[in-house]
Formats: sequence, structure tokens, C-alpha cells
Amino acid sequence: MAELTALRIDANRFRANFETLAGFGATADGGIHRPALSQAHLDARRWFLQLAGQIGLETRVDEAGNHSALLGCGPQGGRTLLLGSHLDSVPYGGRFDGALGVLAALEVLQVIKTEGVSLNTHLEALDFTDEEGYFVDFLGSQACSGVLKPEHIQAPRGGHDSFHAALRRAGMNQASLFSARRDPATVAGYLELHIEQGTRLVELGVPIGIVTGMVGIRSFKLRFIGRADHAGTMPMNRRLDAALGASAFTLSARELVMDEFPGQVVNVGHMEFKPGAFNVVPQAATLALEFRADEDHKLDEMEAALLQLAAIQARRFGLGLETEPLVRTPPARMNTRVQEAFAEASQVLDLKHMPLSSGAGHDAQYLAQICPAGMIFVPSRDGFSHSSREFTEWQDCVNGANVLLQAALMLAQY
Amino acid sequence: MAELTALRIDANRFRANFETLAGFGATADGGIHRPALSQAHLDARRWFLQLAGQIGLETRVDEAGNHSALLGCGPQGGRTLLLGSHLDSVPYGGRFDGALGVLAALEVLQVIKTEGVSLNTHLEALDFTDEEGYFVDFLGSQACSGVLKPEHIQAPRGGHDSFHAALRRAGMNQASLFSARRDPATVAGYLELHIEQGTRLVELGVPIGIVTGMVGIRSFKLRFIGRADHAGTMPMNRRLDAALGASAFTLSARELVMDEFPGQVVNVGHMEFKPGAFNVVPQAATLALEFRADEDHKLDEMEAALLQLAAIQARRFGLGLETEPLVRTPPARMNTRVQEAFAEASQVLDLKHMPLSSGAGHDAQYLAQICPAGMIFVPSRDGFSHSSREFTEWQDCVNGANVLLQAALMLAQY
Repeated sequence: MAELTALRIDANRFRANFETLAGFGATADGGIHRPALSQAHLDARRWFLQLAGQIGLETRVDEAGNHSALLGCGPQGGRTLLLGSHLDSVPYGGRFDGALGVLAALEVLQVIKTEGVSLNTHLEALDFTDEEGYFVDFLGSQACSGVLKPEHIQAPRGGHDSFHAALRRAGMNQASLFSARRDPATVAGYLELHIEQGTRLVELGVPIGIVTGMVGIRSFKLRFIGRADHAGTMPMNRRLDAALGASAFTLSARELVMDEFPGQVVNVGHMEFKPGAFNVVPQAATLALEFRADEDHKLDEMEAALLQLAAIQARRFGLGLETEPLVRTPPARMNTRVQEAFAEASQVLDLKHMPLSSGAGHDAQYLAQICPAGMIFVPSRDGFSHSSREFTEWQDCVNGANVLLQAALMLAQY
Repeated sequence: MAELTALRIDANRFRANFETLAGFGATADGGIHRPALSQAHLDARRWFLQLAGQIGLETRVDEAGNHSALLGCGPQGGRTLLLGSHLDSVPYGGRFDGALGVLAALEVLQVIKTEGVSLNTHLEALDFTDEEGYFVDFLGSQACSGVLKPEHIQAPRGGHDSFHAALRRAGMNQASLFSARRDPATVAGYLELHIEQGTRLVELGVPIGIVTGMVGIRSFKLRFIGRADHAGTMPMNRRLDAALGASAFTLSARELVMDEFPGQVVNVGHMEFKPGAFNVVPQAATLALEFRADEDHKLDEMEAALLQLAAIQARRFGLGLETEPLVRTPPARMNTRVQEAFAEASQVLDLKHMPLSSGAGHDAQYLAQICPAGMIFVPSRDGFSHSSREFTEWQDCVNGANVLLQAALMLAQY
């Protein structure tokens, strides 16, 4: 045990891999455009498998496209401790979100393989498919956890055609996604390192956040329906302008959540007008609504209040309203024993740590359905996330990877 | 002269042609999707030339893609009286806008050819390219009138690539657009029949509106610039959400124009968020702004007030603002002698008529730069326009075509 607590990741090798990975889908402003199953994403995944192979790890791609590197360091027939995150990014996102956790997991396996350590579980470094929900939120980890249901993939973002084309491009097919479910009896646990995507760690000067749970997420498409008219000849007061309902909702939804649901969040991330011409009053305005809360009853209350608000704004401008529910992710709790292992690991490394809830959803919340799961966060400068400005000091990345290594060693010795 | 005032268009033939034309780009709800240079539009134009050929008219396509049917009923070397409108539609528009005027023009030529009437000018039925500005507002009539300048085609809507692809599809090329200019010495005048796209004729029960002039049009792209952030982790009060500026502008621009510029109009017809994901706070929101007024000084005042409002809303939410001027069409006056001819023609037909200004722009405003130009309107039920609900009673269409015929006969006898 004494030797194991002395093990550390190779910070230079880790960084070199991180920089190489950041080249896949790199944008001019230093960010990453690597939406799930895009060519840049598929290229990054292929590189990850090649790297794992070079290290001497076995590799595997499951029916949901999840990419794995495997280290058989446990007893024959033993369970596997999973370490992972995701290589996809939001459109025009940053280089740390997801990528850091996958490479840290791989680094942990490489250190343990190099040292020839025998443990009570095998280890697996996992890259989950479409964590960011370019098509379907958490597609890979939902499938892996057996949570994925046919209804979850009935309305992929961007439409069926583009989803199916992407699956084909990746050599996947829709029918077999559900076969990716892991047998819980084979899984010892799940650990994930991720950037905080908030400012609490930076503000308090704490290098390690131990995640207690994730907020729940719900999303809807709201469609305000008016009437297309000539924008030169129909008097202003006789129009049924769908843009007005969508705009009024966007402004007032923010006020509603800030006033009545302090600490919770709402976003209108996309808007589309039809027919969408300079000289036509918009007939329809469809907006992408997402909101998050740390408890289910708050999600229920926000949903009722926001949909009522949309109905009020539609009526105000004489518009119709259609609402289409999309994502419905409940809040998730992280495993207490895993949180304790992360705390012990931080103490071994003499790193301050604190408990944190997560405003973002993560693959770990689905893995928590089949095994003890936990996460740590490292500080995000200015809290920037889903943006090319996302940044974490390299020492913080190294600290997080070392905590991941130490916690994995502890949990893999049960 | 006695015989000529007795001439009438063939209402059944006119209607049959109208119904056939409405099949090109027909939508399920009875409307038309025939954007300029789309396949449906090119098919409609080809049909128009074939029909003209069957009637025994010469045909011509100029360098701006304007399609013509020619009747050499004047003296050798004589000038030509132009009658026209456009076969393109806004996306998901109606079957009357533009199409009615082109077919009425063709019908006038067919009547005069069948009767073997000799006049003091030749006649030409014209279908102008992209009146609706799918790429460039009034592209064909601007080119024909010599008004088109290279800067007008520098920023085509939808982008250069799609504009150039469309030009290629139509067998056109950008460099030769400017060669379509007509020599004013060869043009005797321009007459156009169009639907009103408003409710004044219906409300007053008047079948013929004689257009006195068109409003001026200006358009801008406004881009509100914030910061992309994770929509779950960045607190609401620390976001720089571009959607808020765009939404607040859309709502307040309407109030500004209704309060301070009564009778004038403003439209936000399109909005685009970047990156455009459910879970990312919008970094940028670009909107399509268009406004119209009947006098130049009002356009100046509206422009100043709307751009100031955009700056105020951007500041309110901590956003940057970029403004890109696009269209700048001055108000236009119709020729007095042509208005008198339309009034005389209405009297010959015992049809009530009234003067009207046009809230819409029309090809006639460009033709007015090179010849005496005029327009008549026929009633639009409920004023619907740029919509599949657009509708004009067939008798009103026939009345309009007969007024066009009689006015053409009068003006072509000078």
C-alpha cells in the first residue's frame, strides 16, 4: 500500500496527449468543434484507440459507439472499475470538457500497467458517445447503463436523417444501441474527472471538488404560431407575429427563474423563424428551452411556471402555442463511498477538497444507476464552459488526474 | 378606337393558365414555394416561354435572366411598351403575387395578336428575376433599369455560394448581369398589374387601385454579441446572453414604430443564434431587420431610432452590437400620364378606381427610372400576402387584366 500511494501520473506525457487531442476539430480561437459523430470526433476516437493500443491496452467499441481501453489487472472473471468521460464537444466548445477526463483515465491505466500493479478489479478507460447531446443527450452512457429507451431516440436533435447519417458514418446502427447495456454484476464502480464549469473552486482557491450530485435537466421545443404576412403591407396592429411571442417568452423566462427559482437556471439556446425572410412577418417561431434544478419538485414547479408563461405570451400576441417535451433527466446523487475515496485520495496528495453539486449533467449520473459512481471537479478559470474560452491551469489538471489515480487504486483494492 | 375599347381578355384561358402556373412549386396548403432560381421557379419560367411560343410570340431571356414574350405590333424600329411582373415567390408564399401580373401581360399580348391590331409601339410581357429578393431584391428589374451596381450583389441573402450555385443552375453568370440594361430610348413605358397585399380596396369595395408610388425600404443585419457559456453552470446573473438583446430589440422595435412612426412598418423576419444548442448560452444572435416608409426623411428618422434602440438593448444586457446595412430602396413615384391612362381604362370598363400608395416595393419603381411607369392593384381578401392564404376573387383578376389591356392600348397609340 505504501508504494501505491506514491504513484503519480506522468504530467508531461499527459499534457502531450492532451495537446494532440486538442488538434482534432481545433478552431482558430483555440477551441474545439467536435460534435458527436462528426468527422473530427470520429478521428479523435480513432486516435484514442490507437494510443491505447500503443500502450499495450486492449480496446473495444460497444454497440453504442462507446470506446474503451482495457487493463486486465484484476483476477480472472473479476469485476471492472470504469473511469471515463467523453471526447465529443458542444459546437464550438472548449478543449477541456470531457477530453480531460478521458485522457486522465487512460493515463491512470498506463501508470498502473507500467507499474505492473495487481488489483482486485480490472480497469477500463471509457469515452462515451454524445455526452453533449448533439443528437441524444448522454446517448452512450444511457445505453451503457441500460437506461436508454426507444422513446429517447425518437426525436434526435437535428432530425432523424442527420442522426441516421451520423450513425452510418460511425459504423453504428440504431437497433443495436440498446445492446450496449452492461451487466451491473460485472461493474465495480465508475469514476470521472471533469472541469467544474463554474467558479466556486476558483473563488475559494480549492483544487479538488468532490461532486455530491447533479442537477436534473428538462428541455422542450416551444413553437409560437402566428400568420405569415407581407411585411410592407399588413399594418403593424393587424399582424400575428410569431417573433413577438418567442421574444417575450425569452425575456420573461429569464426574469421568472431569477425571481422565483433562485440558484436554478434556464436557457433559450436556439430560435428558428418560418418562413424566415426579411419581408415576411414570421408565421412560426420555434425555440429551444432548457432548464435545470437540483431537486425533482423544483423541476416540476419550473416546468409548470415556464409553460404557463409561454401560454400567456402566446395569448398576449394572438398566437398559438405547441410544446414538445424532449429531455427529462432527473437529479442524481453520487455514491458516498466513492466520495470518501476521493477525499482520502486528496488527503494522500495533500490537496484541499470540498463537496460540490453539479449544475451540468454528466455521464456519471447514468452510471450511478448500475454501480457506485462518483466525480471530481477541477477549477475552471472564470467559469467559462461550452466555449473556446474554457481553461483550467495544467497543474489543476495534473492534480485531478492524480486524485483519480489514487481513488481508483483504493477502490480497486476492495 | 371604337373597336379597341371593346376588346376584352379571355377570362377562361387566363384562368386555365393561372391554374397551370400555380402547379409549379405548389404546397399542400394551396400556396406556392417558388424562390428565385429554385427548380420550381426555373420550371415555371420555362413553361412561360413555351406558352408564349405556342401563342406565336417571340421569346427572349436577357443577361439578368428576365424572361420576355415579344409582340412586334408597332412600326419597324419603334419603341416597346413593357408589361410585366415576376414568377418567383417568397418562401411558402401565395399564388397571386407576381404570377397574376405576368400572365395578365401575356394575355394582353395574346388578345392584341389575335385581333391583329397595329399600334405605335411594340409590346413585351416580362417576368423579372428575383423580385422577392431571395438573393438580391429586384435583381432583374434593377439590372434591366441600369440601377444595379456591383455593391448590390456583394452580400446576397443566403450567401455567395448559394447565389452563385443558383446563377449557374439558371445558366446565368454574375459578370454579365449588368449587361441587361435597356436603352431608355427603346422603352415606351412600363405597366404592371399586382394584388394589393393590403385591405383598403376590399374595405372600400373598389375593384381597381391606381398606384401613386411605393414606400422606400431599408434593411439591416443586427448582430448582438455576448459570450457562450454552459447553460447549467454559469449563474443567470453572470451570463452575457445574446438572445436577450435580440428578443428585447424585437419587442421594443415594434413598440417604437407603432408609437412614433404611425402608418409605417418594421419587421424582424429571421433570427439566428450561435452556437445554437439547448445547453449553451447564445454567444451571438443575428436578426434580419426591415422597415419601410413613404418618404425618405421618415426612413432616415426610423433608421436612426431603430439603431439607437438596438444599441440601448445591447448595453442593457452587456452585449456588443454589429450592424450591417443591406437594402436601401428609396420611395418611388408613379408616372402621372400612366395613372391617367389607368383611370381612363377603368372608366371605359365602368370599374370604380381609387389612388393608393404601395406599402410593398415593386419592379415598377426601378422601371420608373428609365420610362413612364405605373401600376394597378386588385383587391386582396383580408390583405393576406406572402402567405398561402393570399387570395383575390377571379372577377377582380379579370377586371385588372382588362384595365391593363385597355391602358396598354391607349398608351401604345401615342
